[in-house]
Amino acid sequence: MNFCSHCGAPVSLKVPPGDNLPRHVCDQCGTIHYQNPKVVVGAIATWEDKILMCKRAIEPRYGKWTLPAGFMENNETTGEAALRETLEEAGARVALGPMFTFVDIPHISQIHIIYRAELLHLDFQPGEESLEAVLMTEAEIPWSDIAFRSVDYTLRSFFDDRRRDRFELHTTSLTLPMTGLVSPTTTDKKF
Amino acid sequence: MNFCSHCGAPVSLKVPPGDNLPRHVCDQCGTIHYQNPKVVVGAIATWEDKILMCKRAIEPRYGKWTLPAGFMENNETTGEAALRETLEEAGARVALGPMFTFVDIPHISQIHIIYRAELLHLDFQPGEESLEAVLMTEAEIPWSDIAFRSVDYTLRSFFDDRRRDRFELHTTSLTLPMTGLVSPTTTDKKF
Ligand SMILES: [Zn+2]
Ligand SMILES: [Zn+2]
Repeated sequence: MNFCSHCGAPVSLKVPPGDNLPRHVCDQCGTIHYQNPKVVVGAIATWEDKILMCKRAIEPRYGKWTLPAGFMENNETTGEAALRETLEEAGARVALGPMFTFVDIPHISQIHIIYRAELLHLDFQPGEESLEAVLMTEAEIPWSDIAFRSVDYTLRSFFDDRRRDRFELHTTSLTLPMTGLVSPTTTDKKF
Repeated sequence: MNFCSHCGAPVSLKVPPGDNLPRHVCDQCGTIHYQNPKVVVGAIATWEDKILMCKRAIEPRYGKWTLPAGFMENNETTGEAALRETLEEAGARVALGPMFTFVDIPHISQIHIIYRAELLHLDFQPGEESLEAVLMTEAEIPWSDIAFRSVDYTLRSFFDDRRRDRFELHTTSLTLPMTGLVSPTTTDKKF
């Protein structure tokens, strides 16, 4: 950020009074421009024993496989975002289930939220951002070609839960890619 | 938004190619400026049978009661945000529990997330944004002076769960204040 989106004057990085972090503050009108994490929402949509997967037609991760998901828009709920993204990326209409995974990714300032869903019919086709939209069994999942770690986490959690026949919310934080670790959130043992 | 934060030129509202919503697009450098929902995170922190409540020292809702909560910052997890806000607004250190409420509020493009927590000690005091930080029993909660509907929802969910001795994630969408309704998320019956 270089200029004030309100008045067009240059901004400077400074800590506003009463704050403790540097913000982009307008040199002219004084507006403080906060920057906040973004929310990505999607669905793990099923048909019988199969999962709806999309092959990405856009960067990043062109050609890799993902679940239908994308940035949440203003004035919608996370559930509505999951329905919209599933329709946009896979041309699929689904019945929405409960929130299934919630993944903090602080180094890119994102939260990824995936809902469970069931396909309402098989009349789906890839949207503009997908090369393919395909139903896959667990054995068919291309584990080495998954686009994002949050998708890998969601798929593994789903198949684990399905095996034990009990679905619940899974939460985690993903650390920097360099470390390669998936660490649990800081939930205290007493809970 | 009137000006491009990247180059300072005026922006226009237009639908970019391949998109279906109007965005603020820079007339000069072409940067598309997306606007996204914001995430508010807080904690319902307990000590024995009491809840940590804060009386707001800032607008909106000056003088009303709330749980410690605030806007999530870049480069932190939701759990870290809950710990930070509890420290900033109530001077309290807590052990973090699981996510407890998740509230979509689409008409203000916000998500409110409250974690359960337990106070580690009683040496707390109101921060700059709080007039008071007080431990309250259920009977002491000032129900007619609660600052936000998501806080009211969280408190009621907490006392309900505590009575039946089973805590779980509660999710909801809050509709426009004019309707006064709390509607469930669009979860299908089959899940
Ligand atoms: Zn300005
Ligand atoms: Zn520009």
